[in-house]
Amino acid sequence: MLNRRITFARIPRGLPVPEDFSRDAVEVARPAAGQFLSRTLWLSLDPYLRNVMKGHPLYGVPLRPGDAMYGETVAEVVQSLHPAFSAGEFVVVKNGWQEYALSDGQGVRKVDPKLAPLSTALGVLGMPGLTGYAGLVYLAEPRPGETVVVSAATGPVGSTVGQVARLVGARAVGIAGSDEKCRYAVEELGFEACVNYRSGDLRELLKQACPAGIDVYFDNVGGDVLAAALGNLSIHARIVLCGMVGAYSMDSPPPGPFLGPVVTARATVRGLVVYDHLQRLPELQRVVGRWINEGRFRYREDVTEGLENAPAAFCRLMRGENFGKSLVRVAPASG
Amino acid sequence: MLNRRITFARIPRGLPVPEDFSRDAVEVARPAAGQFLSRTLWLSLDPYLRNVMKGHPLYGVPLRPGDAMYGETVAEVVQSLHPAFSAGEFVVVKNGWQEYALSDGQGVRKVDPKLAPLSTALGVLGMPGLTGYAGLVYLAEPRPGETVVVSAATGPVGSTVGQVARLVGARAVGIAGSDEKCRYAVEELGFEACVNYRSGDLRELLKQACPAGIDVYFDNVGGDVLAAALGNLSIHARIVLCGMVGAYSMDSPPPGPFLGPVVTARATVRGLVVYDHLQRLPELQRVVGRWINEGRFRYREDVTEGLENAPAAFCRLMRGENFGKSLVRVAPASG
Repeated sequence: MLNRRITFARIPRGLPVPEDFSRDAVEVARPAAGQFLSRTLWLSLDPYLRNVMKGHPLYGVPLRPGDAMYGETVAEVVQSLHPAFSAGEFVVVKNGWQEYALSDGQGVRKVDPKLAPLSTALGVLGMPGLTGYAGLVYLAEPRPGETVVVSAATGPVGSTVGQVARLVGARAVGIAGSDEKCRYAVEELGFEACVNYRSGDLRELLKQACPAGIDVYFDNVGGDVLAAALGNLSIHARIVLCGMVGAYSMDSPPPGPFLGPVVTARATVRGLVVYDHLQRLPELQRVVGRWINEGRFRYREDVTEGLENAPAAFCRLMRGENFGKSLVRVAPASG
Repeated sequence: MLNRRITFARIPRGLPVPEDFSRDAVEVARPAAGQFLSRTLWLSLDPYLRNVMKGHPLYGVPLRPGDAMYGETVAEVVQSLHPAFSAGEFVVVKNGWQEYALSDGQGVRKVDPKLAPLSTALGVLGMPGLTGYAGLVYLAEPRPGETVVVSAATGPVGSTVGQVARLVGARAVGIAGSDEKCRYAVEELGFEACVNYRSGDLRELLKQACPAGIDVYFDNVGGDVLAAALGNLSIHARIVLCGMVGAYSMDSPPPGPFLGPVVTARATVRGLVVYDHLQRLPELQRVVGRWINEGRFRYREDVTEGLENAPAAFCRLMRGENFGKSLVRVAPASG
């Protein structure tokens, strides 16, 4: 039986292109004692993968040309010699961009398919949701009535930040890259306002949307968007730096914003790495899972069909052309 | 009786020059009910005055050409119609760059000349000392054994940060602009190391001086020095942004450092404005005052004689050519 794979071909220059990937097919491996084999159902596409491709030390993943691309997946166990996993169980596992993979169970968590659609384990109830939830609640500590601004507002992290802000009594203001995304943020996600950063002077647009200043800014992109937010801080503002997506596709780090406003506002800037907050995943699933069931919290998925289309979908994501959590449906669940 | 004054002439372009100031002499005013007249003894020169000169909103001081330059002073009350102040008392008061001024007592604090030399009320036991003490102790929260790095290490703020770090069990590493200043930091102030930022690649020099990374970075200058420190952060580092002295003399804010390292290190960056910590002034005077009396804490003053020399001294300060707390002796105390 063949295992089709998308492999890493080379470090992209600038924005990734499909030629930065390759593909092959190898025999499906058999599990040794203490291992299980699983079949990939859903592949998560995330901007941090661009950093993995350039060997960023945060991830500790040395990708060589010809290796299967790295990535988190939802998979179904098909054969197990591991005492804790049985065939037919669903797991979140780093299978990467391939149809089958072995695992020794480390870092793997099981998913209950009755609780929520399996794909949500890679989105709103998985790492992106945890990033937004834990970053907002535990690093930014929003208080009722405060203004919370988030960039990439309709992505899986940003839409979590904005909706959690709303549900804890704060005022959510989004930043997104199209009028359609902004409408969605306001009409579907319940943001009080959302500004299109392509539609004018962002600093001025934010000033209009946040007349009392920004109390919390959750940054997913860095660069000029971050600078515009820093230009509108209220006293004692908190800024969570989550991802500098704008810089991931650059060969050398760009300069950052002038930090004088951080001093003037007595602001606090904190770097967020979601792996530090894994212990809060059950809390995310309990709290946000309940809000979803009550119809008070929405999520949106941007699904690409077929593993072979993953490179194009990833390139689209890095150009900011996705709308919602970027996923590849690799195979349907059995049964 | 004449009151000689140094006045604000114009907003400097870049580094200030003596021509940005003017001078005149006016009649000494007489206090009305609720006011006192005081004679300036010591004038404090501080980098933030460069920001006051360009109308930075943090200070709320609208300087017009011909106004006496703004500044904090130690003065002696010479005539009082204010119930709380008597002739012969010493006060810290914002007399500005002039020999005499009226005050209504707001924001004025008395100084006991028996406790310490009067000039220390503008330095180690005043605002600069409080900036270093409160910023380090309350914003950075250094723990024993941690590495604390501070720029402008021999200035009044930096030398406080480094010595307090040492006295609470941390390892102090300075950054300064000459070998002479670095020697002073190590030999006189008890820093474990001090690197001259003009002597090579600062990021590399800091890596050698801080092999386990920087746990606390107290920034007084911004710019490339800040960027070099960010390149050496340990996990959960705390950065206190105190003053972007490098930018004060620029007409438009320069770009800042790339903030990716703040994310990777899960660092916390906090802006410090000393006015938020005025309630800790008695604590500073008690704690650091005791250390000084015990011979465990040193301070250095860079004294210029005569008010007429204040502009040149200020320009020297802004070029980084001072060595210790920059002061102008305007007059000796009476009696």
